[in-house]
Amino acid sequence: MQSFELLSRKFALHFEKNHFPEEPASLYRPNDYFLGLGGKRVRPVLCLMGNELFDEIREDAWELATAVELFHNFTLIHDDIMDQAPLRRGMQTVHEKYGQNTALLAGDVMLVKAYEYLNRISKDFLPQILGLFNQTAREVCEGQQWDMDFEKREAVSLDEYLRMIELKTSVLLAASLKMGAVLGGSGERNQDLLYAFGRKLGIAFQVQDDYLDAFGDPQKFGKQVGGDILANKKTFLLIHALETAKADQLAELKNLLAGNDEGKVEKVLQIFRESKVDQWALELKNKYLDEALQHLEDIAVVSRRKEPLKELALFLVQRDY
Amino acid sequence: MQSFELLSRKFALHFEKNHFPEEPASLYRPNDYFLGLGGKRVRPVLCLMGNELFDEIREDAWELATAVELFHNFTLIHDDIMDQAPLRRGMQTVHEKYGQNTALLAGDVMLVKAYEYLNRISKDFLPQILGLFNQTAREVCEGQQWDMDFEKREAVSLDEYLRMIELKTSVLLAASLKMGAVLGGSGERNQDLLYAFGRKLGIAFQVQDDYLDAFGDPQKFGKQVGGDILANKKTFLLIHALETAKADQLAELKNLLAGNDEGKVEKVLQIFRESKVDQWALELKNKYLDEALQHLEDIAVVSRRKEPLKELALFLVQRDY
Repeated sequence: MQSFELLSRKFALHFEKNHFPEEPASLYRPNDYFLGLGGKRVRPVLCLMGNELFDEIREDAWELATAVELFHNFTLIHDDIMDQAPLRRGMQTVHEKYGQNTALLAGDVMLVKAYEYLNRISKDFLPQILGLFNQTAREVCEGQQWDMDFEKREAVSLDEYLRMIELKTSVLLAASLKMGAVLGGSGERNQDLLYAFGRKLGIAFQVQDDYLDAFGDPQKFGKQVGGDILANKKTFLLIHALETAKADQLAELKNLLAGNDEGKVEKVLQIFRESKVDQWALELKNKYLDEALQHLEDIAVVSRRKEPLKELALFLVQRDY
Repeated sequence: MQSFELLSRKFALHFEKNHFPEEPASLYRPNDYFLGLGGKRVRPVLCLMGNELFDEIREDAWELATAVELFHNFTLIHDDIMDQAPLRRGMQTVHEKYGQNTALLAGDVMLVKAYEYLNRISKDFLPQILGLFNQTAREVCEGQQWDMDFEKREAVSLDEYLRMIELKTSVLLAASLKMGAVLGGSGERNQDLLYAFGRKLGIAFQVQDDYLDAFGDPQKFGKQVGGDILANKKTFLLIHALETAKADQLAELKNLLAGNDEGKVEKVLQIFRESKVDQWALELKNKYLDEALQHLEDIAVVSRRKEPLKELALFLVQRDY
């Protein structure tokens, strides 16, 4: 099986074409613009890797991978509207550049386009893959809604946050792998194991992401360290701290959350350290990573074929930037 | 074949159930609310009639009809956001009642739900019907974009307006009929004739709608007569008047459009009458209706089976309210 880097380059070449008609330009050029902002293309490559795990990559796996990437971009365009985000990958978001109505409609038509690519896969697999695609799409919307709901809520439990992350992030990684596997003729047990691998990997990735926002090396981490803390964002770290900190630390933490003191980030980090939230987060991440790797291990194909997926998992989750 | 009224009642019964899960309630109750506002359910019934034209209504035609109605409702929720419309069928729109972010996401998940119903039809027909559904969905988005673009433009030609109406309104009527026919095992030529019937009927309907907004009987017409004129909305009537009025009338018309004079509606109507725009519109409507009926005539099934579709066409287009 080919490495993530190689498949990522191949997919980038495949994906680099006009996906939309010429007219109306006011609708489709915003889509071109957004796709042109790039991205790591993790999900379509997972789709290709899920496919290649069982056989050579089929022609129509590239169509499926394209559908997955377009779907992901649809969610980004609409999420950016909802979050009123001015920037994405350092560039203007679609609604910022072209106005909200166009961004709304550009997102809609991006989703429809994803279904157009989906309809190019072999008819034999269409009902099953369309079913999984639909379920995943619905779950991603649910995850986004929970995320917005949680922002307005005082208390969110760890279980609730986990479930939200699963819906908003994990299921699409998991489904990308599984859809590729289905198209590769994989048996049901292997499909499910691959899905479970992706699901756990997604959670580990999010724990890592929350951890790095607080404890990452500012030199390596792309974003401002402590951004989540400044925004009072509910993360694995904050939720766990609120659930486990001692009375006096809890009182101080709530105090800090209520205001925007100078030194807020450093003071919250201090409480995180004293409550050993940092250590807990690394353990939680490793727990999910280990479970993910065990699912991968259990898949009934020769170990050699699984190597690139294992490498990717370790790369995604053990990065310190 | 059953009448529109009967099928409409049957579909209403079939459609009246929970289409969405319990949670997150903050996402799905807005969807329930919107579907509860009702509507004439013209599109799903066209789907059922297209199906019944060729055989008894198949079980899965109801699923297809449900997909079509959910798709239509998705477009309404998002259109209402774009138009900043406060009311729909006399009730609060989704964004007005639940906020814009929820309305955006509720629309998204409504579209996904439509695809979930679509995936319940027979596998044999899925690729063709999914293809037509996707194409139509994309065209409807394009129509909405043209509509928004035209609002900002000074001049719009009749051809451009026609094409916009075709995309925004006609293709979904046409595709509803055709998808039903495909599922009914209709041959390609009959499918295409039925599509052409729906397309022309949609245009005739819009001409009628524009006409009634200007010349309808205020007692019978549900909306404020002259609303389009007050809003300077580009309609069949206004576009034709601008293209054909004599120099002095044209100057006066442009003058009226530039302001909001008392008596604007009556003065514009006067110009419409003097330029015989009213007569022209009725002729245009009849031209499209006749063409539609000719396509229906050409469909190779016994005339008796076509009666309900013919009645529906005459009812939709010759109403004076």
